[in-house]
Amino acid sequence: MIDIINKAELYGYIAALLTTIAFLPQLIRTFRTKSADDVSLLMLVIFIIGLLFWILYGWQSKAFPVLIANLVTLILNCSILLLKLVYRTRA
Amino acid sequence: MIDIINKAELYGYIAALLTTIAFLPQLIRTFRTKSADDVSLLMLVIFIIGLLFWILYGWQSKAFPVLIANLVTLILNCSILLLKLVYRTRA
Repeated sequence: MIDIINKAELYGYIAALLTTIAFLPQLIRTFRTKSADDVSLLMLVIFIIGLLFWILYGWQSKAFPVLIANLVTLILNCSILLLKLVYRTRA
Repeated sequence: MIDIINKAELYGYIAALLTTIAFLPQLIRTFRTKSADDVSLLMLVIFIIGLLFWILYGWQSKAFPVLIANLVTLILNCSILLLKLVYRTRA
């Protein structure tokens, strides 16, 4: 199995899996605590725009781990942003 | 200038810049508020391990935007993790 794909691809898929599922515990935590005040709004906005460019990069250069990972990461981060806006406290 | 590098590379460098600088406002916010309770510890740990694999992937496949972006992102996220541990409240 390892012989079929090369080492770089293997690292890419492990990386893609980890940096994608990483945002699940954040989403679950925000949903449970109903609070994301400590999560920077500016970070989420810049990160989401960046993810859109990674998707373009992955598509253009046929780097499929980059493409797939960033598509799912985009969905998770948009969900976190949505929850943050829903649960925000008025300062 | 645009002619020298191809479109995929251009997207890659914009993506690299955005998903890297995105963590700066988070770091600044955590430093200012002295609180990162809403930031998931599990997210940071899984994300940091994933970044290490992106660095390996970027190195092996010579995808330099991936390599450089993830190196800086790693440093920023390790800093956020450190601040979270320093400022944590005892539950």
